Amino acid sequence: MQTPKPELHTCLSPALLNLYEVDKSIVVIIDVLRATSTIATALHNGAKSVIPVDSVAECIRIGKQIESITAGERDGKKAEGLDYGNSPFEYPEEFITGKTLVLTTTNGTRLLHMALEKNAKAIITGSFPNLSAVCDYLAAQNQNVILGCAAWKNRVNIEDTLFAGAVIERIGKKFSINCDSSQFATTLYAEAKTSLYDFMKLKNASHYQRLSGFGLEKDIRYCLTEDIANTLVLYEGGKLLAK
Amino acid sequence: MQTPKPELHTCLSPALLNLYEVDKSIVVIIDVLRATSTIATALHNGAKSVIPVDSVAECIRIGKQIESITAGERDGKKAEGLDYGNSPFEYPEEFITGKTLVLTTTNGTRLLHMALEKNAKAIITGSFPNLSAVCDYLAAQNQNVILGCAAWKNRVNIEDTLFAGAVIERIGKKFSINCDSSQFATTLYAEAKTSLYDFMKLKNASHYQRLSGFGLEKDIRYCLTEDIANTLVLYEGGKLLAK
Repeated sequence: MQTPKPELHTCLSPALLNLYEVDKSIVVIIDVLRATSTIATALHNGAKSVIPVDSVAECIRIGKQIESITAGERDGKKAEGLDYGNSPFEYPEEFITGKTLVLTTTNGTRLLHMALEKNAKAIITGSFPNLSAVCDYLAAQNQNVILGCAAWKNRVNIEDTLFAGAVIERIGKKFSINCDSSQFATTLYAEAKTSLYDFMKLKNASHYQRLSGFGLEKDIRYCLTEDIANTLVLYEGGKLLAK
Repeated sequence: MQTPKPELHTCLSPALLNLYEVDKSIVVIIDVLRATSTIATALHNGAKSVIPVDSVAECIRIGKQIESITAGERDGKKAEGLDYGNSPFEYPEEFITGKTLVLTTTNGTRLLHMALEKNAKAIITGSFPNLSAVCDYLAAQNQNVILGCAAWKNRVNIEDTLFAGAVIERIGKKFSINCDSSQFATTLYAEAKTSLYDFMKLKNASHYQRLSGFGLEKDIRYCLTEDIANTLVLYEGGKLLAK
């Protein structure tokens, strides 16, 4: 008799997380533009750890307590009182190796804390820059998976959903998937995958508009590039670590 | 100077309704399989009104108070104590003309009551059988619109989202649309529209599975047929009426 496959669900917004069995699942936090892409990059480039926090004040507070770099943006600009911004380009190897980064993000951190409160079996972060690392890890665990889109203030977004679609296209067959949200994700990804950037632009994705309005096209292109910072990122003891 | 266009949003689940300005919008309640399809059919075929209620007990209670037909299903079967089921085929003209139908549905009624509590400017129901009537009405109002998918216990579903996509394909240009959910809907619909039924089957939509398991393929096909009961359905004073 075959062992039943573990289940995979896509959660399109933090507001829907309570529909899923978080305590029986690995949760992937997906915040493609730009939090989880920047986190993968910093850790891939040798950061000691990334501490995700949900406010500028908390970021400053922790920055005073431990030797670290504080970072975060509001409305596309470095937030007052912090050292750096949200761009993955700010964290090259020669700068970030061995350092602790305290990063304030809103949507991604909120979802991560929700998954933590609901006792997720494990929490990792996902982004196109570390897509293969995420897929390899999930495929090896034989556990239920929730692909958790951080969305934007609970509104679903295209880019996080596309990432869920990319994961399902690669490793979906290892899971039992009975979830219309996952079908949305794969349909969207199949349509978009020849050029994720062009798709975002064509569909006038709300986040594409927001960031390109700040002149961040280069960041967007980077954040949609697969495996450019291919390191697994696991949450352990309040920190995100390269594994 | 051009008058700004009204806004259109797609709300994929009742759990996300609080993200939208309901009190400044017309809300379209979409519960394709099968509530809003059956409602359009009954009214198109001459029903005096349809009273949507959220429980079998409430359905029976109202059925005793007024001369009416009580209807509703649980798990694909007529619920105990009610006269009829949820199938649109149960309400042909020769049977339903002039009668009041008290219909219990869970997801659709819940969303309707939420829209009512949040003071929606107007509430209509939408389904493929009355797609054109819905589009003609919305296009003529020059008001903000929320395409409200009833979903399934707050989980997004393919068929309600497809209907949102169909509406946007027809009349989207009359609205300002800055909403990734609407992009999901149009992408899904563009992929599906040559055969909605085959798409549902191919994508193994959760609701397709549920209903086809009850032998209701004929109902599903009907509920995915455009303009087969092309009557506008407006909620007024506790009742759904043909307009």
